[in-house]
Amino acid sequence: MLVQKYKDMLAGKSVIRELSEFATARGQEIGYENVFDYSLGNPSVPVPQAFTDEMIHMLANRETNELHGYSPSLGITSVREAVAASLEKRFGLPYRKEHIFMASGAAGALAHAFRLVTEPGDEILTFAPHFPEYGPYVNLTGAVLKVVPPDTESFQIHFGKFQEMLTEKVMAVLVNTPNNPSGVAYSAATLQRLADLLRQKSAEYGHAIYLISDEPYREIIFGGVDAPCVSAFYDDTIMCYSFSKSLSIPGERIGYVAVNPRCRDAETMVNMCGQISRGTGHNCPPSIIQFAVAKVLDKTADLSVYETNMEILYKELVDLGFTCVKPGGTFYIFPKALEEDAKAFCRKALAYDLVLVPGDTFGAPGYFRMAYCIATEKVERSLKALRRFVEETYR
Amino acid sequence: MLVQKYKDMLAGKSVIRELSEFATARGQEIGYENVFDYSLGNPSVPVPQAFTDEMIHMLANRETNELHGYSPSLGITSVREAVAASLEKRFGLPYRKEHIFMASGAAGALAHAFRLVTEPGDEILTFAPHFPEYGPYVNLTGAVLKVVPPDTESFQIHFGKFQEMLTEKVMAVLVNTPNNPSGVAYSAATLQRLADLLRQKSAEYGHAIYLISDEPYREIIFGGVDAPCVSAFYDDTIMCYSFSKSLSIPGERIGYVAVNPRCRDAETMVNMCGQISRGTGHNCPPSIIQFAVAKVLDKTADLSVYETNMEILYKELVDLGFTCVKPGGTFYIFPKALEEDAKAFCRKALAYDLVLVPGDTFGAPGYFRMAYCIATEKVERSLKALRRFVEETYR
Repeated sequence: MLVQKYKDMLAGKSVIRELSEFATARGQEIGYENVFDYSLGNPSVPVPQAFTDEMIHMLANRETNELHGYSPSLGITSVREAVAASLEKRFGLPYRKEHIFMASGAAGALAHAFRLVTEPGDEILTFAPHFPEYGPYVNLTGAVLKVVPPDTESFQIHFGKFQEMLTEKVMAVLVNTPNNPSGVAYSAATLQRLADLLRQKSAEYGHAIYLISDEPYREIIFGGVDAPCVSAFYDDTIMCYSFSKSLSIPGERIGYVAVNPRCRDAETMVNMCGQISRGTGHNCPPSIIQFAVAKVLDKTADLSVYETNMEILYKELVDLGFTCVKPGGTFYIFPKALEEDAKAFCRKALAYDLVLVPGDTFGAPGYFRMAYCIATEKVERSLKALRRFVEETYR
Repeated sequence: MLVQKYKDMLAGKSVIRELSEFATARGQEIGYENVFDYSLGNPSVPVPQAFTDEMIHMLANRETNELHGYSPSLGITSVREAVAASLEKRFGLPYRKEHIFMASGAAGALAHAFRLVTEPGDEILTFAPHFPEYGPYVNLTGAVLKVVPPDTESFQIHFGKFQEMLTEKVMAVLVNTPNNPSGVAYSAATLQRLADLLRQKSAEYGHAIYLISDEPYREIIFGGVDAPCVSAFYDDTIMCYSFSKSLSIPGERIGYVAVNPRCRDAETMVNMCGQISRGTGHNCPPSIIQFAVAKVLDKTADLSVYETNMEILYKELVDLGFTCVKPGGTFYIFPKALEEDAKAFCRKALAYDLVLVPGDTFGAPGYFRMAYCIATEKVERSLKALRRFVEETYR
């Protein structure tokens, strides 16, 4: 008999996927260049040439069994060393290879982090607005994801509501900064207050409360923005990183878990990840991709287009009267819809070939997400449609 | 608090890994070429040039965002189509892309297969001798692996014991043919009898009993051996394949689930795999590797060395008086030790720099495994050590 819980999930449709399919279908009618598809968070800037060059160089020169051979389950030792050295240099924390577990993207990293610190029934808190996949990611482990309502003024943390929900059952708090979908980066003040509260509650409850920090957008920070390293504020932090966005290689499934060197059981936790892998079927990320990213740890794709796009959109949205927190990074923006029902708002926008995603999906009804990882030229062309949509529908 | 079950697993040491570490350390003393390391099942023949060429060609020529972009969670459509076409051509079953789920190696494929058909507490049966990782792979899902004792005459299936253990609680039977560690391939007669029994018991119990067929060694079959396709015998078969051994790329984590097209819910099962992935953190195997294997589906590395090695070792073992079933494939052989305690036998062999793995690890005490995925020249040099070991210890 097939397992019902997975069968039941097939009925649930992803709003983002449906919208993206609409965009594709509409593109076939009127040309995809005429569809202003802001639905998908798919990196659009080219992969750094250094990554490609490194891949070709290894394929052309290295002994094939060594290049494509089994990685140790914690990751290739030299790669873990390189990641640790890069993190130490960058964030000033004493990372060593013993703190690094190579994982298949952030999804793989999170799958290990959740299993490290939660038993079935334990709670993990996250903050709205949030990446929708956190729901199944957490709940399929047997733990329970609970979502703290948003502080819509700033999309920092609503500490009042957070404190209410931070009960003894909470074993971990999951943050994502800069954030999908709001684009907002948590400030030093927010992270300090978060860390203080977690320390207080850990002591009060007599058990650690881990901070799981999902950081796939860490490298996409806009000029002048205060976006400090989460791990620097709180010892029991499990950093989950992905190279998907920084190198534009989301299909290659490469990232890592970096347990804070100051976390009491950091090395044990990394070793435990190797055991967790045996159950998840993970084993290790692809060897050649591990080797390649280790060579370009301090490089990124040219991410500047995202800031350019953000500035254009933000200015226009504000001009049009939208309430909108200015993003500090990522390639998302999360304005308030012009009517209470963001689903209705986004449905109406489709008539102008504007594909926007209602905030309900992200735990923040009344808002909508635009993923502006598209060509600047297209962002510019979309402004006219946006203006027409607003003026004809809401004026 | 860290999850105890994973912490506890850290205490358990892998016998194979310990032996491999011994071999490495000993190699540093006397030169690795003088250590007859039969411990690890690590492919030793070069990767096919066609795979390398295809990788370089794509890196040099394809648009990077397309090449390294997100794969759909079921796998890249064109890759699934190519896999299905290749399976149909080869095995005569009407595979379509809807039956194929691309996975991160056989471990990833199995992780999905187990979750498809078992709830916590359900039983999966497998047959000794068996790949040791099946234990944690199954048990960490919450299902329970039970091992049917071996038929040591042939290393086919001990049907008497199997029938006793095939109770109503069994939701799946896991086979691995040709087998690690015995090297034996199940004959058509074995598979027919297995299928008949599963059909009978499925009807009796009123629920499907799925056959999960782990086939990483499928392409390593020796001359004249009867090694038919498992799926051809039983409709409810979930094939789990890996390219690790056929292409010598175990580090690249690529394989697939192929649900038998005749299985009642085949398409639903593949779609369910995409949901299971959300919990395991799998998402998809690396894109570039998916594209590359799709181009070389009908190629393999030059696997002939494994048969050459097998013939040399088998002849010598028989000459020396070992009881030994002749392997039909893989790069393993599984002779009976010359004393009851195979661990003692293997320990004594270390004095001759022969690194052998006791069968206890594989659920078959009294036997030992030799992984002969090493250079033929080294196999030949090892014969003298083997002979000296036997003559000085057991004559």
